[in-house]
Amino acid sequence: MDTALRADAEQIIRESLRAVLPDEAVKRALKDFRPGPGRTLLVAVGKAAWQMAQAALEVLGPVDGGIVVTKTGHSRGELPGLRCYEAGHPVPDRRSFAAARAGLELIQGLREEDRVLFLLSGGGSALFELPLIPEEELQDLTGQLLACGADIVEINTLRKRLSAVKGGKFAQACAPARVLNVILSDVLGDPPDGIASGPACPDPSTCAQAEAIVRKYGLTLSPQAQALLAVETPKELDNVEIRITGSVRELCRAAAESCARLGYEPVFLTDRLCCQAREAGSFLASILKSHEGEGRSLAFIAGGETVVRLLSGGLGGRNQELALAAARGIAGIPGAAVFSLGSDGSDGPTDAAGGYVDGDSLSALAAAGLEPEAVLQENDSYRALQAVGGLLITGPTGTNVNDVAVALLRR
Amino acid sequence: MDTALRADAEQIIRESLRAVLPDEAVKRALKDFRPGPGRTLLVAVGKAAWQMAQAALEVLGPVDGGIVVTKTGHSRGELPGLRCYEAGHPVPDRRSFAAARAGLELIQGLREEDRVLFLLSGGGSALFELPLIPEEELQDLTGQLLACGADIVEINTLRKRLSAVKGGKFAQACAPARVLNVILSDVLGDPPDGIASGPACPDPSTCAQAEAIVRKYGLTLSPQAQALLAVETPKELDNVEIRITGSVRELCRAAAESCARLGYEPVFLTDRLCCQAREAGSFLASILKSHEGEGRSLAFIAGGETVVRLLSGGLGGRNQELALAAARGIAGIPGAAVFSLGSDGSDGPTDAAGGYVDGDSLSALAAAGLEPEAVLQENDSYRALQAVGGLLITGPTGTNVNDVAVALLRR
Repeated sequence: MDTALRADAEQIIRESLRAVLPDEAVKRALKDFRPGPGRTLLVAVGKAAWQMAQAALEVLGPVDGGIVVTKTGHSRGELPGLRCYEAGHPVPDRRSFAAARAGLELIQGLREEDRVLFLLSGGGSALFELPLIPEEELQDLTGQLLACGADIVEINTLRKRLSAVKGGKFAQACAPARVLNVILSDVLGDPPDGIASGPACPDPSTCAQAEAIVRKYGLTLSPQAQALLAVETPKELDNVEIRITGSVRELCRAAAESCARLGYEPVFLTDRLCCQAREAGSFLASILKSHEGEGRSLAFIAGGETVVRLLSGGLGGRNQELALAAARGIAGIPGAAVFSLGSDGSDGPTDAAGGYVDGDSLSALAAAGLEPEAVLQENDSYRALQAVGGLLITGPTGTNVNDVAVALLRR
Repeated sequence: MDTALRADAEQIIRESLRAVLPDEAVKRALKDFRPGPGRTLLVAVGKAAWQMAQAALEVLGPVDGGIVVTKTGHSRGELPGLRCYEAGHPVPDRRSFAAARAGLELIQGLREEDRVLFLLSGGGSALFELPLIPEEELQDLTGQLLACGADIVEINTLRKRLSAVKGGKFAQACAPARVLNVILSDVLGDPPDGIASGPACPDPSTCAQAEAIVRKYGLTLSPQAQALLAVETPKELDNVEIRITGSVRELCRAAAESCARLGYEPVFLTDRLCCQAREAGSFLASILKSHEGEGRSLAFIAGGETVVRLLSGGLGGRNQELALAAARGIAGIPGAAVFSLGSDGSDGPTDAAGGYVDGDSLSALAAAGLEPEAVLQENDSYRALQAVGGLLITGPTGTNVNDVAVALLRR
């Protein structure tokens, strides 16, 4: 392994993640926030909730109450005046319901002069949820939808109507108090109603669409659920202001700046990557292979959220698959490396944030009796990268703005 | 459809293809060719054989005899002093065997002062072949190899030994005459022994490797084939000079220059693209989506040879799949287009060279009742692109240096 190249990668990772920590983003968004004459409450939800809440307290000083709801293991201790909850992700659990109930109780009886600072980040859809139908029925319905191949927009069109907080309903419950919704986006293109199912965002979907989905898939629903689907979600929310302050684009920009400081010419490709992880790895490797020998130091940057087709029950994640899939294409190229990581520090159900390979990785894998294609067929990238020192481990980072992949070529 | 953008694409295609026609490449390679005191024979093999031979005759004037072997429909008439053959591709047929036999007869009894000009292009492996075992046995063996998942290098290691012309044997048969092998490459990275199975190239594979492959897959062979596998292929060919004169890199360079003339900033990504066609299309679309609204005219260029996983029996090709797969990602982006084509003018078993989509294509497809993902699942890109005017039709181009994809964004 080329240790100097690996050190470059580690520095790029460190600097990129630091740039998208919620601290600066939250402070920027709160620059002109006026607490108002009434009470100021803080509700922070998502994988970056703890860090966002801490940053907000630094700007605002003490608030009049609030809650923080984050993923298990992502809380970093007590915050003055706030109650911290940890809940289930990616599948909501009873702690998610308890957290949403606490949130709704907190904002009961607010008046026009009161303010709610609602800090939202990815993962919020599972962490902050209160179904209006029995939990078992919601699970059964979700199962039916997945089985018949409904897409995420269709699923959310129904779920927003069956939830007490999604689809703008949390902000509606805050009225007449004003809500400032500061969003750290983990969704490509940053559609506010798509981030954590938009608890403070007007819902563009309609009852007619919901009913069409039920007919389309022939879903079985209780009378209670049927009645809920006929209740329109808020189409306007006069009391809400939305500010998107962090996104994968900023992560890419920060990576490019870090690469430039290290002497690479950065080439920003995309912040909308959505193809298969292993094919993205192959594409990035092809790019490096074609620029070999030009005598330039180059860094190609591609952010987004790739997908993995689960063919088997191995251990890995989309960022690890992307990196491993690049190993063959860059094999033997001096100064070439490809790495990819999730900005929240977790990639798939592993303790790694992502993966790293360089021009020596393929032979190192071969020496360990491993062949990338066979490993990918088993979706088992974690152990293969582990065998060649190719895991990127950061722990929970306190932020969550999706993934970035970088292909480096050092002169 | 944005007709101005389509016109840009057509011009880029025209200019790129013109730049990689064999004419210039062959003339460049023959600049210092000295016919020698003896006879000069010409053997042209491959999809671009006719055009290469014509260019050579323009430089050299009449030769003392020769043959041209190309794919059915790729010959454009008689050439003075040469016999033209058309043969089967991608599967060799009896015409391929007749052509190789004619080639071997032509070069019989040559002396040291004679010269053979051997013009080679992609497709030659099928078009110019003479098996040393019965045709049926070769087919059976190839079937066994494919069934057990042998890769192309393994298959060629055996086939070179079972052929009278592959693996350097054609040039060996020309000795003591000198052979100038001018190659128009359609193989990524231009390995001379991999282009048309290298009839004039020393063979790096060994008998020991061939026997290991037989053992690895437990292949059933006749005593005749077993004996042939034990005969070593030429490892040095003193009488051969190889010149690679055209390649996908030149195609990419020509596309970039054409884009620049039209006012786009060209970004050369790769000439080594080898990932899945549809994923490459998605990646290119992501790139355009991320640069939308920057106020720049950009052209991203990716050459190579993508792959298609045949899931169904539809009609299409890898270039058409790449283009169609980009339709959703660039939908609604003004001035965005993605196109891809095979430089030989044929993409898969269709009469199209490739496909073209722009920001309007997705809605045009929807109006025709077509959804790209469903079409791709059926490998049926041809009819879908046909329905929205997205086929690129060039006819046989006279060259063959693999594929190029271009993603355009016009300010």
